[in-house]
Amino acid sequence: MSEQPLILVTNDDGIHAKGLRELVEVIQLFGEVIVISSEVSMSGKACSITVDYPLRAVPVEKIHGAKTYKCNGTPVDCVKLSFNSLLDRTPDYVVSGINHGANSSISVIYSGTMGAAIEGSLHGVPSIGFSLDDFNPDADFSKAKMIVAKVFQSVMENGIPEFTCLNVNIPKGKPEGVKVCRQAHGKWEEEFQKGTDPHGRDFHWLAGYFKNFEEESVETDIHALNNNFASVVPVTVDMTCYKTMEQLKSWKF
Amino acid sequence: MSEQPLILVTNDDGIHAKGLRELVEVIQLFGEVIVISSEVSMSGKACSITVDYPLRAVPVEKIHGAKTYKCNGTPVDCVKLSFNSLLDRTPDYVVSGINHGANSSISVIYSGTMGAAIEGSLHGVPSIGFSLDDFNPDADFSKAKMIVAKVFQSVMENGIPEFTCLNVNIPKGKPEGVKVCRQAHGKWEEEFQKGTDPHGRDFHWLAGYFKNFEEESVETDIHALNNNFASVVPVTVDMTCYKTMEQLKSWKF
Repeated sequence: MSEQPLILVTNDDGIHAKGLRELVEVIQLFGEVIVISSEVSMSGKACSITVDYPLRAVPVEKIHGAKTYKCNGTPVDCVKLSFNSLLDRTPDYVVSGINHGANSSISVIYSGTMGAAIEGSLHGVPSIGFSLDDFNPDADFSKAKMIVAKVFQSVMENGIPEFTCLNVNIPKGKPEGVKVCRQAHGKWEEEFQKGTDPHGRDFHWLAGYFKNFEEESVETDIHALNNNFASVVPVTVDMTCYKTMEQLKSWKF
Repeated sequence: MSEQPLILVTNDDGIHAKGLRELVEVIQLFGEVIVISSEVSMSGKACSITVDYPLRAVPVEKIHGAKTYKCNGTPVDCVKLSFNSLLDRTPDYVVSGINHGANSSISVIYSGTMGAAIEGSLHGVPSIGFSLDDFNPDADFSKAKMIVAKVFQSVMENGIPEFTCLNVNIPKGKPEGVKVCRQAHGKWEEEFQKGTDPHGRDFHWLAGYFKNFEEESVETDIHALNNNFASVVPVTVDMTCYKTMEQLKSWKF
């Protein structure tokens, strides 16, 4: 009998997040799961790595029977450490999430959930980040798990081209289905709440709203979510803007 | 007389880094400079943002006569805060660096220097990250500054297409010139040094070497640096892998 696939599961909401536990539960149907995550929230940690102090990974209570480690690093650190030091064999898949809150459009560049998936793809294995468009810590993941199972099944059947991962965003409620699409063009606006702390010092707290630069009818990840579909965006690690590169070649330096 | 351009300068090595001071010195030739940076190193912070606690920006001693703020956030936080709350008028340019160490190839996704430049481009202004291929805290930036001046001058003349920024890497010593190129395809390998701390606990400290997957003759940023040229790679915020997107459309979910 062939060995079960080994699936590394991580997230950026921390080891106690409901979304992580729900993801472990559904991904276990497909293979042996190992979990590694931070004890604290790593939301918004993007692809950040820890260079100034050492990392530790400590076994903790299993999640749904899966071997689980807590780690003092970022989601990318968790993936790097697992591949390089922690595990006896190379994972066959990296799965990150289920994030509490969408990581559609430009949020992909800030997302720790997607940082982990991008890092997984750099290690040469199919990697997926899953996010639910609901920030509630006690969100209902029951329908989202059906999308996770569908997408993971497809990835097992088809693979993902090397150095590409999937950014999967799932609407609240009951999704109508799955759409493959591109990242919407948009950004976050008016991003700080000002205040004064108990000691009289000014502070600025990151907030704001997402502004979509696309026409409403254009098929993007935001469009999919707005129409109650889960979005699947393939994400590359090559950030070169090739069109601009050609323009720049005429510049005189 | 028309107003001088306002240039926001930041970095990821912290406010005391030599590379920041050298960058301020050269960029001041082109306009009014405002500096904002962290007191501590933000190396490897990528595009990370701070959501779990408030940010503060405090005026500190000027750098080469330029108004300077220290901030408790990441490079991206510094840019967001400057555009949204700190400055009286919108900066015309964002310039980040000069980083101590190259940010070529895949390092673009981990780099705080490039995080700041990417964020600048999202705010709709021409943005550039500069890095010197020398980790020495007391590196010689004299030749690098000539490249910075050349590239900045070109950007003032030509602009940069919206939502694109430049990743400029400069070799040690005296560069032969400037090459516009794409990000090399590569990754970091064997990334942890293991040890035991004074309290008997195991630790893992991020280390490793860069592995270039490209043929030696292919023109990339790594190739430029290896041949003593500064590299200029335009960087996009759209991480969609369009080729894979087309493949995925045939999948059945």
